[in-house]
Amino acid sequence: MAETSLQGSEIKELIEQRRWGDLRMVLSQHPAPDLADLLSNLEMNERALLFHVLPREVAAEAFSYLGTKEKDALIRDLTHEETRRLLEDLSPDDRTEFFADLPGQAIQRLMNLLSPGDRKETLQLLGYPEESVGRLMTPDYVAVKKHWTIEQALEHIRDKGSDSETVNIIYVVDDSWKLLDAIDLRKLILAPLGHTVVQVMDDSFVGISAYEDREEAVEWIQRYDLVALPVVDPDGVLLGIVTVDDVMDVAQKEATEDFHKITAISPLKASYSESSVWSLYRKRVGWLVILILVNLLSSGVIAAYEETLATYIALAFFIPLLIGSGGNAGTQSATLVVRAIATGDVKLSQWARIFGREISVGLLLGGTMGLAGGLLGLFRGGYQIGVVVLLAMISIVLVANLFGTLLPFLLTRFRLDPAVASSPLIATLADGAGLLIYFSLATKILGGMR
Amino acid sequence: MAETSLQGSEIKELIEQRRWGDLRMVLSQHPAPDLADLLSNLEMNERALLFHVLPREVAAEAFSYLGTKEKDALIRDLTHEETRRLLEDLSPDDRTEFFADLPGQAIQRLMNLLSPGDRKETLQLLGYPEESVGRLMTPDYVAVKKHWTIEQALEHIRDKGSDSETVNIIYVVDDSWKLLDAIDLRKLILAPLGHTVVQVMDDSFVGISAYEDREEAVEWIQRYDLVALPVVDPDGVLLGIVTVDDVMDVAQKEATEDFHKITAISPLKASYSESSVWSLYRKRVGWLVILILVNLLSSGVIAAYEETLATYIALAFFIPLLIGSGGNAGTQSATLVVRAIATGDVKLSQWARIFGREISVGLLLGGTMGLAGGLLGLFRGGYQIGVVVLLAMISIVLVANLFGTLLPFLLTRFRLDPAVASSPLIATLADGAGLLIYFSLATKILGGMR
Repeated sequence: MAETSLQGSEIKELIEQRRWGDLRMVLSQHPAPDLADLLSNLEMNERALLFHVLPREVAAEAFSYLGTKEKDALIRDLTHEETRRLLEDLSPDDRTEFFADLPGQAIQRLMNLLSPGDRKETLQLLGYPEESVGRLMTPDYVAVKKHWTIEQALEHIRDKGSDSETVNIIYVVDDSWKLLDAIDLRKLILAPLGHTVVQVMDDSFVGISAYEDREEAVEWIQRYDLVALPVVDPDGVLLGIVTVDDVMDVAQKEATEDFHKITAISPLKASYSESSVWSLYRKRVGWLVILILVNLLSSGVIAAYEETLATYIALAFFIPLLIGSGGNAGTQSATLVVRAIATGDVKLSQWARIFGREISVGLLLGGTMGLAGGLLGLFRGGYQIGVVVLLAMISIVLVANLFGTLLPFLLTRFRLDPAVASSPLIATLADGAGLLIYFSLATKILGGMR
Repeated sequence: MAETSLQGSEIKELIEQRRWGDLRMVLSQHPAPDLADLLSNLEMNERALLFHVLPREVAAEAFSYLGTKEKDALIRDLTHEETRRLLEDLSPDDRTEFFADLPGQAIQRLMNLLSPGDRKETLQLLGYPEESVGRLMTPDYVAVKKHWTIEQALEHIRDKGSDSETVNIIYVVDDSWKLLDAIDLRKLILAPLGHTVVQVMDDSFVGISAYEDREEAVEWIQRYDLVALPVVDPDGVLLGIVTVDDVMDVAQKEATEDFHKITAISPLKASYSESSVWSLYRKRVGWLVILILVNLLSSGVIAAYEETLATYIALAFFIPLLIGSGGNAGTQSATLVVRAIATGDVKLSQWARIFGREISVGLLLGGTMGLAGGLLGLFRGGYQIGVVVLLAMISIVLVANLFGTLLPFLLTRFRLDPAVASSPLIATLADGAGLLIYFSLATKILGGMR
């Protein structure tokens, strides 16, 4: 626990009384993310004041934890010189993230404030595609040569370490900067000082391309339990590293995207709380309108059986129950499979085994719900209706369940995003199939007129 | 990239030809997670053979990456002595995880193979509640005293570091083992050897209780960008640490649980691919049956308006369209809010602002879909039906959208899990509300008889 939790009121008082020394002392006891929270809860003028009191590196770190809009607002309150210093103090990956969210002309204006070296670096990092590993990468790492002694290596780490994003992993490169190994700092510390680096190398490391999807980086860091992942070019030359903290943020963002996709929402650009009405509308309306068209299948089925329905109006009673249940079961199985594919729990090649298992699950679920529905039918409409509802429920739940299982596999097979098999899509398709099953069973059993 | 990817066929050949030396060499170039994959793809007898060839610590590490069932199967093939060695080599947190998944009598049997010290440690860790921070914790960390010199501290790290889960963070404790600070190893390395530990301390650290929900650990590690989180008792005494790699696994599991909850599936015990038909059935059937009852609301509405429907049978055509659209829009907003609450993007106190914004979003969505639906109604049933569908669609989408927004907040307010506002529940409730709106509008506008 930080010794005391940050009290906005206490801070406001110190600002009002202009007790800068005390303020600086109180602030120094809190980690950057808490300071960022404090900043975003303060009013505009207090915010800039507080920001000035923070030591430069702390201010830059706190800045990097702010939301996009808050960063924008804060930077408007700073002078040119202050902005220049802030940009200089940001770590390269945080700077890339900040720039990537800015509109084009603002990038240009701020870019001019950077030193030539920082500008080149930033342009290079921004040159990688959105959502690529390159965008997450920082060139601030420590590299050593394999013929160095441990003592030389440690000396070098002492020299370069304070500017580096992490020293927990040290990279071994050759003269053309080709990556040879990634070594835990612990290994260097534990080795006798006279040994050479090559003696602690194990030639086993994983490196990733800067053009890979950032989800790959998540998967690799997770799979190999790394704290940093080296990024290499096609020749194996070390370009930078991606650290586990950035990857955790990406993992969370990607999971959020999957949550949205699974309910038929296109990925939001900003967070939900920061999104505007208009952008929420645009990200949601697309699929909703498509689903209206899909829904015409159901309407078509009803139109085809309109006479049956008019004759046996009691059938209408069970429409929501039957199509709802199919939708619910199909939604469940689709989400299970979509998530299992996303986490690597299930592979495309296993589709037949999973499909077979879901036949059993679907029959059990359909049987249970068929009994419940059948009893309702019996009480409501008599023996025949009871049988219709029983059989319809079993078939509908089974079909929807299998459909929900298969569709994500099919989408994956054709290299489409399995999450397109969203709950609303599956539910809508299940509605159509459910109505068809229900009415065709009903006309058969009740001796309907078609 | 690992130099060569692991070829199952090559390994099988080496096993068949009993070329143990070559086998050991090939295997040594691959990280433990790849070896675990290889193990689970081999047949039983090859698996045990291969496991014997691996160096002890590597074997234990690979073991910890296997699935529950595979661990079980493998341990059956080992002798008592081999099992004892394996258990000894497992790190305490991996051991806790392994034991936690075993049935009671197997725990007892294996527990007897442990040394008294390991047994005590394991029992202690297993004593924490399931899904608590204590279950993730390992006591293998390096602690130093604040009056030590940097040189003494580094000496101590060299001494203890090889048994420790991480040396990236060094913990400073007092004589009663109370945690005083958590220091980046980098700081120790960069400091002059003659300084004392107290000179590099910054008195700013976050510690967590062993009884906290493991999700808290995820949140803290993510928020403060840590590689390890110290676990303390109520007096601030250091009990152990939780490392970022374990926390990433937890984050993924928790996200999967949320995906399941959002489609009304109770949390699975095993992964989807490892779950049995029966357990999948049990985790899914509960909500499906509850939803049948909720669905009776819809059926009740239809029953109440049966005469209207019989008179204007054309109304049936739009039932799936209208209730489906409400369900889809409600599902979207519920998932947006549930996920935003889960990630901390939105707080309970912000409900009014979010609600206000969703009124606008709902009106825009409802307007768009109302126009589409109204046109369909116009073509299908004429002017009056067109108006009914237009107005019904706007109201249904707006109501469902607001309902999907509010329910997660309400659940949170009453300390329930917001994810109970699952897609199926929202869709089912939207069905009922949608039918009510549709039929009451229809009777008003068409001059129905009720």
